[in-house]
Amino acid sequence: MSNTNAEKIYKLVGAEAVLTSSPDLRQYLTGMSTSFGYVVTDCEGTTFYTDPRYIEGAKNFLKDSDITVKLYEGKLDDILKGYKQVAIPIGRTLYNDYARLKATKVEIVDSLPAFTSAMSVKEDYELDNIREACKIADVSFLELLPKVKEGISENDFAAELEYLMRVNGASGTSFETIAAFGENSSVPHHETGMRKLKYGDVVLVDFGCKYGGYCSDCTRTFLFGDDGKHADFKKTYKQVLEAHMLVKDELYSGISGRAADGIARNKLAQNGLDKYFSHTLGHGIGINVHEYPILSPYSTDTLKDRMVFSDEPGVYIEGEYGIRIEDTIALIEGKVESMTDSDKKLTIL
Amino acid sequence: MSNTNAEKIYKLVGAEAVLTSSPDLRQYLTGMSTSFGYVVTDCEGTTFYTDPRYIEGAKNFLKDSDITVKLYEGKLDDILKGYKQVAIPIGRTLYNDYARLKATKVEIVDSLPAFTSAMSVKEDYELDNIREACKIADVSFLELLPKVKEGISENDFAAELEYLMRVNGASGTSFETIAAFGENSSVPHHETGMRKLKYGDVVLVDFGCKYGGYCSDCTRTFLFGDDGKHADFKKTYKQVLEAHMLVKDELYSGISGRAADGIARNKLAQNGLDKYFSHTLGHGIGINVHEYPILSPYSTDTLKDRMVFSDEPGVYIEGEYGIRIEDTIALIEGKVESMTDSDKKLTIL
Repeated sequence: MSNTNAEKIYKLVGAEAVLTSSPDLRQYLTGMSTSFGYVVTDCEGTTFYTDPRYIEGAKNFLKDSDITVKLYEGKLDDILKGYKQVAIPIGRTLYNDYARLKATKVEIVDSLPAFTSAMSVKEDYELDNIREACKIADVSFLELLPKVKEGISENDFAAELEYLMRVNGASGTSFETIAAFGENSSVPHHETGMRKLKYGDVVLVDFGCKYGGYCSDCTRTFLFGDDGKHADFKKTYKQVLEAHMLVKDELYSGISGRAADGIARNKLAQNGLDKYFSHTLGHGIGINVHEYPILSPYSTDTLKDRMVFSDEPGVYIEGEYGIRIEDTIALIEGKVESMTDSDKKLTIL
Repeated sequence: MSNTNAEKIYKLVGAEAVLTSSPDLRQYLTGMSTSFGYVVTDCEGTTFYTDPRYIEGAKNFLKDSDITVKLYEGKLDDILKGYKQVAIPIGRTLYNDYARLKATKVEIVDSLPAFTSAMSVKEDYELDNIREACKIADVSFLELLPKVKEGISENDFAAELEYLMRVNGASGTSFETIAAFGENSSVPHHETGMRKLKYGDVVLVDFGCKYGGYCSDCTRTFLFGDDGKHADFKKTYKQVLEAHMLVKDELYSGISGRAADGIARNKLAQNGLDKYFSHTLGHGIGINVHEYPILSPYSTDTLKDRMVFSDEPGVYIEGEYGIRIEDTIALIEGKVESMTDSDKKLTIL
């Protein structure tokens, strides 16, 4: 698989050599998560240069691939072997690194469009890894629910969920879990803290895990007991869920990210809720939890088959409550597959 | 605290305005962890521009500070208010962002040296946060040991430790926990997997957590039962520990990162082990788990009072075993304070 990705990028870019050092792009090429290294592909093949911390692991991991593993000796010139033309992901490149390469008089070509295009349309093995990450997240969330007790803190809640995801097979989280109780739910990216759970609280939890190097992303909002004061919340919940589901019904391969966002935003507008939908509808998901494409009012991206992204409309009433309902979804043969898919009917614990 | 840091950087830089968008530098200025935003400091004060996901949280968090919170409307020009001179952290700046700013004809000044210098020498509140992160890590590790049973996977072991750190008050991990059983310990940055624990295994665990936005970093190596085949391992363990302790004894304020590394490397060389010490002795720790200063054979950094960094000599015998003994330490009034400090005498479970 790994060498195929390197070959794919090499062909798409069409430069003499492709030099890659961004961690996520390097992971796409090698299949390994590493904090340091350079991948170089030229007409003779692909070499992964890394440091002594990774060299033994990389040799084992890549022994059946076409990727050669070598120790990086500290000199970029040595691995560039006098190429006249080198492709780098310019939008990911630090100014100093760009300037250093430029000073060698090499012709710089941009590899980022090739990575963006190749990484956004998933291979079967990538879809399978994301499906597994999503399944682990779903199962863990359902295992968590009966353990939720009055008085636990947001931090404890997040700790328990992250633990369940790990013991269910995740290699880690795809981002820091957001657990927001009560009025904290109205802050879209609340910092999980020591707020204790009370009877009647709204609970908003945004969580994800990694499997095989790929991410899941899911948000659920539910009630911890019904204190009878939630008529407005319940009505709004239903309307947010309708917007979420309408996106799944109406998406098709070839729709723009802007139009996709519009499906949810217009639906919310019918109930006067669009002014409380203060973020974008979604983002691509893969090795990174946020990647191409973007589903927003300003997006120029096009959603295609085998892309994976989030569908996450939200409504936030400052100081009162927030509701976000998010699944990781994929476009498969023109239809939506919901990869996280635990029940979204309002849960009252 | 937050506004003091912004003022400190502003004075150190001496430019008309300081523009900061790197997440860790932004966190240093605002005290908040956010995934998007710009901080601008000029002679009139500091403004934090962020998006709707963070605006309510930021206003609450910064209500008693001198930092004004404003919505970022999508145009960098608007927040640069026609400044003639703007400081950015050039070494952290993407080529495209640099080029975009350059095109506005503004004079670009480098703010990174000021951040590096200010962030490496810790204030009391920063030391306290790191001490707490280290204490949580120590306590959690000791709570984990009695739960370690034959047959658990590296992944389960890591999950349990991360859970304990969270319930003991951490906001998350400072990096993905490395748990390596048996022969896997000889890979310095092993990818935690499904290898099951067997009687007589060497266990190497590298783990850290965050508290108040600051990191801890610690590695322990121990034996899961003594099958009588570990004479060489035990001898080497003692020698690695001697190198680790010698660093703590001999460090002083003003020593170079190169000389610090040499203390451990030369000590290991006395036993012919330096050729197996395939990484550097240490790295600065703070908001980032890897930051200034570096303790390595090539380091030109100088260790000063109130700097926090790791002391982590290691020996890796390929395919057999690895040993790394790491504490987070600080230089306080010229002496070493070991911030992680659980017992380093060889543990045999």
